[in-house]
Amino acid sequence: MPIYKAPLEDVNFLLNDVFQIDRYDNLPGFSDASADVREAILGEAAKLSEEVLQPLNRVGDLEGCVRHDDASVTTPKGFKEAFKQVAEGGWLGLSAPTEFGGQGLPVTLSQVVTEFQSAANMAFSMYGGLTMGATAALIVHGKPEQKKMFVPKMVAGEWTGTMNLTEPQCGTDLGLLRTKAAKQADGSYKITGTKIFISAGEHDLADNIIHLVLARIEGAPAGIKGVSLFVVPKILVNADGSLGARNGVSCGSIEHKMGIHGNSTCVMNYDGATGWLIGEENKGMQGMFVMMNEARLGVAVQGLAQSEVAYQNAVAYARDRLQGRALSGPQAPDKPADPIIVHPDVRRTLLTIRAFNEAARAMVVWTSLKSDVAHRSSDPKDRDAADDHMGLMTPVMKGVLTDVGFSNAVLAQQMYGGHGYIAENGMEQFVRDARIAMIYEGANGIQALDLVGRKLPRNGGRAVMSFFGEVAAFAKEHGADEAMKPFVAPLSTALGHLQQATTWLMQNAMAKPDNAGAGATDYMQLFGRVTFAYMWARMAKVAQDKIAGSGATSYLTTKLVTGRFFMERMLPETALHLARIQTGSATTMELPAEAF
Amino acid sequence: MPIYKAPLEDVNFLLNDVFQIDRYDNLPGFSDASADVREAILGEAAKLSEEVLQPLNRVGDLEGCVRHDDASVTTPKGFKEAFKQVAEGGWLGLSAPTEFGGQGLPVTLSQVVTEFQSAANMAFSMYGGLTMGATAALIVHGKPEQKKMFVPKMVAGEWTGTMNLTEPQCGTDLGLLRTKAAKQADGSYKITGTKIFISAGEHDLADNIIHLVLARIEGAPAGIKGVSLFVVPKILVNADGSLGARNGVSCGSIEHKMGIHGNSTCVMNYDGATGWLIGEENKGMQGMFVMMNEARLGVAVQGLAQSEVAYQNAVAYARDRLQGRALSGPQAPDKPADPIIVHPDVRRTLLTIRAFNEAARAMVVWTSLKSDVAHRSSDPKDRDAADDHMGLMTPVMKGVLTDVGFSNAVLAQQMYGGHGYIAENGMEQFVRDARIAMIYEGANGIQALDLVGRKLPRNGGRAVMSFFGEVAAFAKEHGADEAMKPFVAPLSTALGHLQQATTWLMQNAMAKPDNAGAGATDYMQLFGRVTFAYMWARMAKVAQDKIAGSGATSYLTTKLVTGRFFMERMLPETALHLARIQTGSATTMELPAEAF
Repeated sequence: MPIYKAPLEDVNFLLNDVFQIDRYDNLPGFSDASADVREAILGEAAKLSEEVLQPLNRVGDLEGCVRHDDASVTTPKGFKEAFKQVAEGGWLGLSAPTEFGGQGLPVTLSQVVTEFQSAANMAFSMYGGLTMGATAALIVHGKPEQKKMFVPKMVAGEWTGTMNLTEPQCGTDLGLLRTKAAKQADGSYKITGTKIFISAGEHDLADNIIHLVLARIEGAPAGIKGVSLFVVPKILVNADGSLGARNGVSCGSIEHKMGIHGNSTCVMNYDGATGWLIGEENKGMQGMFVMMNEARLGVAVQGLAQSEVAYQNAVAYARDRLQGRALSGPQAPDKPADPIIVHPDVRRTLLTIRAFNEAARAMVVWTSLKSDVAHRSSDPKDRDAADDHMGLMTPVMKGVLTDVGFSNAVLAQQMYGGHGYIAENGMEQFVRDARIAMIYEGANGIQALDLVGRKLPRNGGRAVMSFFGEVAAFAKEHGADEAMKPFVAPLSTALGHLQQATTWLMQNAMAKPDNAGAGATDYMQLFGRVTFAYMWARMAKVAQDKIAGSGATSYLTTKLVTGRFFMERMLPETALHLARIQTGSATTMELPAEAF
Repeated sequence: MPIYKAPLEDVNFLLNDVFQIDRYDNLPGFSDASADVREAILGEAAKLSEEVLQPLNRVGDLEGCVRHDDASVTTPKGFKEAFKQVAEGGWLGLSAPTEFGGQGLPVTLSQVVTEFQSAANMAFSMYGGLTMGATAALIVHGKPEQKKMFVPKMVAGEWTGTMNLTEPQCGTDLGLLRTKAAKQADGSYKITGTKIFISAGEHDLADNIIHLVLARIEGAPAGIKGVSLFVVPKILVNADGSLGARNGVSCGSIEHKMGIHGNSTCVMNYDGATGWLIGEENKGMQGMFVMMNEARLGVAVQGLAQSEVAYQNAVAYARDRLQGRALSGPQAPDKPADPIIVHPDVRRTLLTIRAFNEAARAMVVWTSLKSDVAHRSSDPKDRDAADDHMGLMTPVMKGVLTDVGFSNAVLAQQMYGGHGYIAENGMEQFVRDARIAMIYEGANGIQALDLVGRKLPRNGGRAVMSFFGEVAAFAKEHGADEAMKPFVAPLSTALGHLQQATTWLMQNAMAKPDNAGAGATDYMQLFGRVTFAYMWARMAKVAQDKIAGSGATSYLTTKLVTGRFFMERMLPETALHLARIQTGSATTMELPAEAF
């Protein structure tokens, strides 16, 4: 059976030492999250994930979700009780506003909790994750009566939420969507159409399901400018808040898919279902973007989470499995063979995963703090800067954390040899589950285009220049520090590659957009590597200071070695990405479509 | 439903033009494989793969194999009829010696057929593949009466074969194996023990199953030097060749695994089963290596095959799926959106897969011809040189073709967006099936160690020096040719990286073997990239000559563009691998095991 331990020591290092969350005490909700409160909350979150959610991970994979003839859906055994525990524990409302029954604590905390829950049971954690995303969209764009009707119940986990974008003929290109909304005399709309790939579209975990649905109002302009957002409850809600009649929306089937079997991925049929407009007519993407940006960070965390749990299991196996002898001579001469963790290629693999996990986790905490600032700061300049950061880093994190998270799950599976291919050992489930994160909430190629085509040029490149400036300032400040040289020198080189790539795109993509398209994925990966390097350099500095101050611990020493491994072995990838970007699009675009 | 078309045009280009198979007409069997014979055989092989095997691929995945209470195993619906067709068509004996009923044709041809069958249905093709491997071991190391008893039936596909190495406590390290062999008065042995992960261990496709089993004769030395090889038929064979009593070997269970569900992966219980020694006592690995080397090339071809079929489906989808508009303006203005193949990132992905497929296929044909020379040439010098080549390239091909083949299947799946995650579209099956090829027949980390630790230093580095010399001579010969510069210049740079890496290993790994271990995987990948580049340069030269001679065709023009894409976008990876190798093992080995 796979294991999972929430990485509390690493999280505490990031929150307390690297990013010093206490410095943000002036933000609403932060002073409620004092060190001892954080410790208690994260300890409970760890326990819930380790003891309740993780044991249901394989059950969920084996059983999957079942749709019955009446279109109801049963989730795997144990999910209902576990979801009740999550809801009653207030986990869905951890960072939700207090006015809706939430605890108003920092988003940073709830992102950490998301990692734990997603590592323990990705398919399960999606029910809550989608609910939090839908809640966020309702809070930002919903009308007061909509918020009052839906949000408190969703924050409490009594009802869950979904997002309904995809249709058979449209995924990335939502301008092609056909689901119709017909305005009624009472101001409501009748929604008719078919949505596919709807995660948590129907299930037995909650009393009601609140669907956020993109549809086209009759007579609306063609394309994306004619798309509106609606809230469509599975069960209509009476004025007094009690549940009324069943609405005209139902699950047509459950998709058979590669992984996340514990989550019900539904075809949803809207057959004149009653819905209400969220935000303005034909401005549906605004509301959906709130939800999508929230969801994209959540998906990035899923990539990290699967990499983390896969790593932990690979380490346990590598310590335990006896096979062969160390190249430098027997390490366990009393045993028939050495544990495979003595082999350099095994260590190289494990360190590759670990060096990513810790950098990615730092990036999540760093960016989540910016999210808190963007939403809670009273200073508009701080809010803008934080918002710039979020806009820039969201596609990078979604694309890179899920790409690398998946490939790390594959690496971890490899450590098991043939046993990694066998279902009961759980490693292959991590791979299958992690695979979806590269696809949903905007496939990673789309994230790369979003980064290059939208986020880079926004406000004259303000966000990216600010990031470059921050990294360069760090490098300058610590460049003369001998102990920091193994971190600062490669960081500076890598930053140079990213700056060259950025300049190349500015000079070559305006006149020929295909040059941006052909380099987008490499640019996103390059951006991710530089950000990881910056995270590593910051972590190394803090670790060195702590060692100088209060002595070395195994945790701190390991941190520094892992960081050096990243700099030596992984960061050199930046030169490759730069070289690829600079080849441009000519060869890539040369062939006619029929030649492929 | 997924599609598959055997790549006949590409195969013919390789056989006829690049490697000019007719030049080998002096080798036994080659003159029987004239151009028209080859065309007829490969045309039939294509038809069988496309029309019979491919339609069973998804059936096999869905149904899997079923073990019944009597320990018998049923394969998926249609497999039995298809296997009969394969056997009766003589496909298992294509390159087997005529004295055992084979057709004696070049191994080169049967490797091409293996690609077709494996692309069409990997799980199915393994039943035949293992049979051919076991046959090869029996032919080389079996006693005359063993050959006579087993080989003709296996060549005819009436009986199949297996290889039994792995036990619960040992995979890579076969010295740990415990299965016992007790010598009987009649010269036979009683075999007792448990083997796991036995592909095609039990099934309903053939009248008998011939197990080749590694076991330890009572009183044998400990470790790998006490391991012997036995032939253990499922059903004992009478002196007249008829089937006799059931032997004491049976399937204990079928593993639940990530993919290749159509192949029965069995736990095999040997309970005093009667077996006969193959080769000498305690020299079991010699016979097993014949089988393993054969199998490793077959597994390499599986990596290519899954990449090829995944590519074909991704192309079809990319031409068909309408989503978004080209960055350079609408390409299909009469349609609601452009097909996604207009997007540079989609083309980049498709060309990445294609550039690998064609180089890998060239490498398979090139190496298979060497295999034919090694086994059939009358000139000992030619045989030795070909054998050097095989020894060197086998781990490279097994490791690199399966690693890249898998990651290409993932890339191809990505082209489908959410639809790639849905089982019925078949893309996720390619990923799950391809995954095992990185693991079995020696996990890829072991291939890398075999390359660095055994194959490089063998005979004072004779094989690798010969390879370097061949590539350098090619570069020199064509270096001044203007049209060849886009191929020769990068090839020379990449060869330089490989030579530097080789020198670094020679200088640094003798005293400190961990330096070899820590760089082994990167060295293998680097070696693979240089070999691909050499294949591309050779293909480019031939394509250019053909265009100069008889004019451009779509096939030849596409070949040159794809080759340039490889040189521009993929070959720069060599610098990264070199940089990693040169960092050595210090950081990788620094942490104690408990710090991970």
